[in-house]
Amino acid sequence: MLVVAALGGNALQQRGEPLTAQVQRENVKVAASALAEIVNAGHQLVITHGNGPQVGLLALQAAAYNPDESYPLDVLGAQTAGMIGYLVEQELENALQSSCPIATLLTQVLVDRDDPAFNTPTKFIGPVYSQQEAQARAAKDGWQIAQDGDRWRRVVASPKPLDIPDLQVIKLLVEQNVVVICNGGGGIPVIRDANNCLHGIEAVIDKDLSSAFLAKQLGADALLLLTDVEAVYHGFGTPNAKPLSTLTVAESHQLNLPAGSMGPKISAACSFAESGGFSAIGRLSDALALLAGRAGTHIVSDHGDKAMKVAN
Amino acid sequence: MLVVAALGGNALQQRGEPLTAQVQRENVKVAASALAEIVNAGHQLVITHGNGPQVGLLALQAAAYNPDESYPLDVLGAQTAGMIGYLVEQELENALQSSCPIATLLTQVLVDRDDPAFNTPTKFIGPVYSQQEAQARAAKDGWQIAQDGDRWRRVVASPKPLDIPDLQVIKLLVEQNVVVICNGGGGIPVIRDANNCLHGIEAVIDKDLSSAFLAKQLGADALLLLTDVEAVYHGFGTPNAKPLSTLTVAESHQLNLPAGSMGPKISAACSFAESGGFSAIGRLSDALALLAGRAGTHIVSDHGDKAMKVAN
Repeated sequence: MLVVAALGGNALQQRGEPLTAQVQRENVKVAASALAEIVNAGHQLVITHGNGPQVGLLALQAAAYNPDESYPLDVLGAQTAGMIGYLVEQELENALQSSCPIATLLTQVLVDRDDPAFNTPTKFIGPVYSQQEAQARAAKDGWQIAQDGDRWRRVVASPKPLDIPDLQVIKLLVEQNVVVICNGGGGIPVIRDANNCLHGIEAVIDKDLSSAFLAKQLGADALLLLTDVEAVYHGFGTPNAKPLSTLTVAESHQLNLPAGSMGPKISAACSFAESGGFSAIGRLSDALALLAGRAGTHIVSDHGDKAMKVAN
Repeated sequence: MLVVAALGGNALQQRGEPLTAQVQRENVKVAASALAEIVNAGHQLVITHGNGPQVGLLALQAAAYNPDESYPLDVLGAQTAGMIGYLVEQELENALQSSCPIATLLTQVLVDRDDPAFNTPTKFIGPVYSQQEAQARAAKDGWQIAQDGDRWRRVVASPKPLDIPDLQVIKLLVEQNVVVICNGGGGIPVIRDANNCLHGIEAVIDKDLSSAFLAKQLGADALLLLTDVEAVYHGFGTPNAKPLSTLTVAESHQLNLPAGSMGPKISAACSFAESGGFSAIGRLSDALALLAGRAGTHIVSDHGDKAMKVAN
């Protein structure tokens, strides 16, 4: 089975931990052991990951050194794909003990310059500022800013993935049974101009949406959206909260979802389920059990014969 | 013909230019056009590149943001491989107009923990400083420093490459006629422990030496060491300085070389020439002419039938 596994932020950093190299490595070591189980069970594996905190940190570092020479988000995204991809590859190699080759591939993902997301940036990036500081940076650097809690931050567009120029290479590696780490941070956001040339663009693509898109393009059998929550919950935050073992696309629209990352995960899972693939959301440490339908929430299309069911 | 082309620092930054993203992109655009000529001439191409200035800059950025949480050189090296690889891949794709797939692959390179280089750091990274500034940084951050021309810089260990764990994947892509960008910054330096596990280590592997090693491991036909100097010179710095069109390994030991980057290039070229490959040093813009023996300096083994010859 060809499995696309999308690593959530907890694969690199638990809530509250500082984003040091050592912290990320220790977390990746745990993630690698869960991912190795999938490979050792005989599946082909493509691994994707987010980069929100990391791209923010690199922007902070660059600004601290020289506020007048910030690097654009495509370049910072490429840096994070290098860093995170390296840690995941090395720890997975150590977990698998050379039984299987692994490739970390930089991945550009095409978006539309006219995507409405560019008119309504929603993705917070980089450090927090006072309103006055944020407005000054906005005036100076052309940022768009928005309130994040009681502070202000830069916001950037999160456009939809439209094409993966590097898909041919990813497919080629998968066909040769190479474990591929790609689409890091949702992919490096690029646009194509009238001369058929690629250019980076200031954006961050949602990692879950991008992983579902990749899974469809690859014709993958399964998409696992791995996080630090055991399942999607019915009645989340209420005394009657119950983890759901199965959820249809239609039912997902009726859920009262908490703010945070579950929304994009459910959208991504629904999109892949509707294309006919097996789609599940759950704990990173349960990755293999998720694939077997023994843990997490399995999202099924409305055309499927399964209904929402509370897990035992 | 399978060609390994090693990009010197000028592929990303001309002497004196600031290391902004835009400067690097503009330079890479020029480099991409020279590299595209090699692909368009029908050759298979593997591209490597250095990262000395970039890895130094990222270290400074991280230190400026939080001096107590510096990232180790393997992680910073992986970041630079992502950034530089992305720029090279995108500009080469634009130059080739999708005629050929390109893959940017993170590459670990194994070194020996007991390599004597760890006792005598020689590899320059980061920006140049006055002696006083450099000494202050050394005292504050525990750097080792050394004189580079009339300025001072941080130096780190530059151990010898011993193995490329990712070689199998590079070979696989080359066999499928994918242009591969790999071994960025000389490769991410790693060691293997008694349990067969890989770990990053504080070092920067010389890009030229590492490229020659890669070229040998791949069984490449040619190694091009591309820089901003047209050739190796006989009598460099004297009124009688002459560019050499051919140089034997034995003759290379008699050259009075200027300080700077020509030494490692000649060592690398000699090492590849002695293994039977075609080896040349010259201008990036002359890449295809170098391959045809119409420009630059062709290094030949002492067993070859060519002798040192002054270019017409």
